[in-house]
Amino acid sequence: MGLHNYLVYVRKLNNMGRWATEFMHQRTTVSEHSFLVAQIGQMLALIEEENGGKVDWGRLFRKLINHDVIESITGDILSTTKYKNPEIASALSVIEKELAEETFFAEMEQPYRSLYRNLLFDGKDDSLEGRILRAADNIDALMECIFEVKLNNIGLFEEKYHAILKKLKESNLVSVRYFIANVLPGLVADCERLAKKTTKYKKEEER
Amino acid sequence: MGLHNYLVYVRKLNNMGRWATEFMHQRTTVSEHSFLVAQIGQMLALIEEENGGKVDWGRLFRKLINHDVIESITGDILSTTKYKNPEIASALSVIEKELAEETFFAEMEQPYRSLYRNLLFDGKDDSLEGRILRAADNIDALMECIFEVKLNNIGLFEEKYHAILKKLKESNLVSVRYFIANVLPGLVADCERLAKKTTKYKKEEER
Amino acid sequence: MGLHNYLVYVRKLNNMGRWATEFMHQRTTVSEHSFLVAQIGQMLALIEEENGGKVDWGRLFRKLINHDVIESITGDILSTTKYKNPEIASALSVIEKELAEETFFAEMEQPYRSLYRNLLFDGKDDSLEGRILRAADNIDALMECIFEVKLNNIGLFEEKYHAILKKLKESNLVSVRYFIANVLPGLVADCERLAKKTTKYKKEEER
Amino acid sequence: MGLHNYLVYVRKLNNMGRWATEFMHQRTTVSEHSFLVAQIGQMLALIEEENGGKVDWGRLFRKLINHDVIESITGDILSTTKYKNPEIASALSVIEKELAEETFFAEMEQPYRSLYRNLLFDGKDDSLEGRILRAADNIDALMECIFEVKLNNIGLFEEKYHAILKKLKESNLVSVRYFIANVLPGLVADCERLAKKTTKYKKEEER
Amino acid sequence: MGLHNYLVYVRKLNNMGRWATEFMHQRTTVSEHSFLVAQIGQMLALIEEENGGKVDWGRLFRKLINHDVIESITGDILSTTKYKNPEIASALSVIEKELAEETFFAEMEQPYRSLYRNLLFDGKDDSLEGRILRAADNIDALMECIFEVKLNNIGLFEEKYHAILKKLKESNLVSVRYFIANVLPGLVADCERLAKKTTKYKKEEER
Amino acid sequence: MGLHNYLVYVRKLNNMGRWATEFMHQRTTVSEHSFLVAQIGQMLALIEEENGGKVDWGRLFRKLINHDVIESITGDILSTTKYKNPEIASALSVIEKELAEETFFAEMEQPYRSLYRNLLFDGKDDSLEGRILRAADNIDALMECIFEVKLNNIGLFEEKYHAILKKLKESNLVSVRYFIANVLPGLVADCERLAKKTTKYKKEEER
Repeated sequence: MGLHNYLVYVRKLNNMGRWATEFMHQRTTVSEHSFLVAQIGQMLALIEEENGGKVDWGRLFRKLINHDVIESITGDILSTTKYKNPEIASALSVIEKELAEETFFAEMEQPYRSLYRNLLFDGKDDSLEGRILRAADNIDALMECIFEVKLNNIGLFEEKYHAILKKLKESNLVSVRYFIANVLPGLVADCERLAKKTTKYKKEEER
Repeated sequence: MGLHNYLVYVRKLNNMGRWATEFMHQRTTVSEHSFLVAQIGQMLALIEEENGGKVDWGRLFRKLINHDVIESITGDILSTTKYKNPEIASALSVIEKELAEETFFAEMEQPYRSLYRNLLFDGKDDSLEGRILRAADNIDALMECIFEVKLNNIGLFEEKYHAILKKLKESNLVSVRYFIANVLPGLVADCERLAKKTTKYKKEEER
Repeated sequence: MGLHNYLVYVRKLNNMGRWATEFMHQRTTVSEHSFLVAQIGQMLALIEEENGGKVDWGRLFRKLINHDVIESITGDILSTTKYKNPEIASALSVIEKELAEETFFAEMEQPYRSLYRNLLFDGKDDSLEGRILRAADNIDALMECIFEVKLNNIGLFEEKYHAILKKLKESNLVSVRYFIANVLPGLVADCERLAKKTTKYKKEEER
Repeated sequence: MGLHNYLVYVRKLNNMGRWATEFMHQRTTVSEHSFLVAQIGQMLALIEEENGGKVDWGRLFRKLINHDVIESITGDILSTTKYKNPEIASALSVIEKELAEETFFAEMEQPYRSLYRNLLFDGKDDSLEGRILRAADNIDALMECIFEVKLNNIGLFEEKYHAILKKLKESNLVSVRYFIANVLPGLVADCERLAKKTTKYKKEEER
Repeated sequence: MGLHNYLVYVRKLNNMGRWATEFMHQRTTVSEHSFLVAQIGQMLALIEEENGGKVDWGRLFRKLINHDVIESITGDILSTTKYKNPEIASALSVIEKELAEETFFAEMEQPYRSLYRNLLFDGKDDSLEGRILRAADNIDALMECIFEVKLNNIGLFEEKYHAILKKLKESNLVSVRYFIANVLPGLVADCERLAKKTTKYKKEEER
Repeated sequence: MGLHNYLVYVRKLNNMGRWATEFMHQRTTVSEHSFLVAQIGQMLALIEEENGGKVDWGRLFRKLINHDVIESITGDILSTTKYKNPEIASALSVIEKELAEETFFAEMEQPYRSLYRNLLFDGKDDSLEGRILRAADNIDALMECIFEVKLNNIGLFEEKYHAILKKLKESNLVSVRYFIANVLPGLVADCERLAKKTTKYKKEEER
């Protein structure tokens, strides 16, 4: 009796802009972000498979499209707040589960209640699929930065671009290394500010 | 050499509003629509499995998230124009393939060129996954109508609601029947205009 | 050396919409909310003075315009999340202070650092001015609900209207009682859904 | 009985943004485009008259304001799709007429049905007025490109600027040559990226 | 040397929303209004001709598309302010001419300077064309009211609807009477609030 | 009986964008402007007090938050129009008072009618508080220009930046001199176009 309620909440992700405190030329909604994370995750997985990786595609897509659904209840809390210290991170994590029970599951008929409970909180673990999700989430944020910097909205977005890229470079996924070496240069090619530094990274990479 | 280009185009779906000629209180972008189709498709597939259906989840999600990517090149042509007659439908279908070759594949490295060629044009076939895609696509349009009618934007959207519901009722998917009987009533419960007629459908259904 | 930084952050309140997860016809920004809270607080204070109250106007305005400045750093966290339980409320309160130190005060020259430290965290206390702030904050939220319900965006906003009104009715401020008895009826007069119930409240009030 | 219906459809041009797949700082609607085409066409016609041309002003304005009305039914199909090959162009042209009959004319009282039938499909012919319409349509698109490039939205819009300018230079209208020589330089003067190349064109022109 | 400047200013009408102080679901820009006034004026003129009127089409269109160009300099001053008393109306009218000289004409080459000077200030006179302009201007405002009331944005827009309709009924143009009797009923047919009163007007008309 | 009406009008300031004729990346509403003027005024007053000034804080805030409320009736008339000549300025000033009487005060109960009459028209006088208001109003406009220029929306906004800065430099308020010397440089530091000239001003200042 509560599946309709789940759909109503998922649609709320259309109303919610990311990077809440910043001015953006192109603010993406959480729904748009989820779609792009799914597309990027699909690309990373194709690359993993070409390099001998074994992808559980059903599991991967479930992670990709469900990882932000909980934000339809809690809002998109800024990661600077969310991850400021372990106490807040764990307090928020407890609350997410409580709110999901009250809002989604309390009135949802079985077996869907149990099925969705698993879907919503099965995110960024250490499986290949969990690591692809984490990387795809970062790459989409990286692309948001690139598009803002191209349109001259620098400052924060240039800074975040370098911070996220640094994090990506620590990934040991072959697909992420392929992305940095072969996809990213094309994305920043027409953006002088970012192209130079990115090329530098690439060269370091190749040594 | 062309994967970055694919990502740039996919992001264009964020710029593109659906129902181009109409005023809407909540216009969804094609990206948002794709995400919601993925969520709805996931729900239908869970219901199919509960009823003994056998879902290829990897195949399903691929269909769900890629079915509108081609619109990043062609734009979202209104279905009244697109399906006006067989000549235009087939002429457009030929053009879609030509434009995809020129824009996406011409410069994409192998094996990704072949892989994406399959992904983009593997849509609404007669497999269980293809039928779920078609139904999910319709259900999202139905929900867009419901939300507009609730906000008093009637006329076209009330008319379309009934037209789409009629189409859905012709589906022989058990998940679609479950949706109509058990999910839809909750979606229209607080909308007097739609609730009455929908209940009527439900009763006819139950006979 | 950090006053410019304070102004840059305050301007970010222009980018931030309230009621993040909901569709709204008229989404107000946090800046707009702060301005309206100042206007409403001014009205309540005028009424208090007419009824023998003693208002420290400088203190009042400082509370009214500064109470949400911290959100320029943390974002506008939904109150359902923020006040879900005492742990999260106190964890967030600690973080607010830490982030304010890092972002605002670390580089701000004295004596402005000390002055602003007092201004930003001097909010909803039990002084007359603090109680006027709390009431004005609620009344602005009430007005947001009224304007959405008038435009047929019911559901959540009708529910919140009644919840907030209930909270207001518990206030022992004479100005809030005056507002409920003499201002609110005019605000809901042309909104059938709200007018009836509100009148009922008024009558109960008068008994 | 159908004139009101015509007005309702014409208003839909207010909802429809041009350049559907692209991000734009200033997206114009089809109505705004039509108005600007009328203003530009008026300017070209004044110049033609100064140079001995004979303008039928009534006919000119009718072409200028009606040339995109059909898009209120079909949507604004991207010209890359529309003119991809002769088959699609002619299939679309047939459909436009059919849809106009069904939507506009079926219920319109005479003699207005016949009058509007002539008005809507009397566009870019080889008369002076038809050629002015074609040029004005191009010049407005050129101006859209200039304004985006000025705001740093380069890439596509810089490319299109040069493509459209090339097409304009092939026009044999004296007013278009006057525009290129005496109006365009002022439009791009404060845009370094475009000013240089445009001046170059001008010099080539003068040889 | 100043024609480019004229075009830059005319494009500013795209930035300017009408009914500046009011919330609207569909705020039209001054450009969109000008286009719709041109379309409505065209319809009135066709009706006049059917009824024996003699329309100077070139003159008519010039009035229709140029009547609000001056607002690109002055902004769209609310008519409640503009026509509050004769002093302000005449003071504003003087200023409009001064600002037009400084902004448009000072640097415009002859003969265009003289031509545009005539075009911009040749508005709502007592010629048939001037009267059609005045009526079309009012009918577009009437339609804006209808569309807002249909979407439940009543109050001001319902009030203005009746005020404007009253003014229109005083017109002695045969085309305006035709509009009220044969076009308007279709425009308000699906809007209960307006349909009843409008029908009543119609009946009074027919007596 | 008219306090609700005052609140309804104040909320209209949320609908009203500033700089009506211009394209802006970040258009502020009059409410947002009023809030920012209050914040800037607060900063100037803190600086005045540090330098021995004596601020009446209640009076200051009243000026800061009420100075644009009248625009909820008249709209935000462009200052180029408003101050074009003394006749128009004084004619508008008379009308503002008449409209305020009709709209706000006619039905407002005493003593609030008298109280608000004083509040609304107690603006930019020669008291310290009046001069802080005038400066804060200018500084907010200056900041609007800075943010547009940073995002590459130059032309008008660069020109206005210099015009407003020139006016500010004529102020004899110690807080304004402090702002120019110690706050402004940080605001323009990451904007090459403005930073150079501003530094130059600063040096001149120091001589």
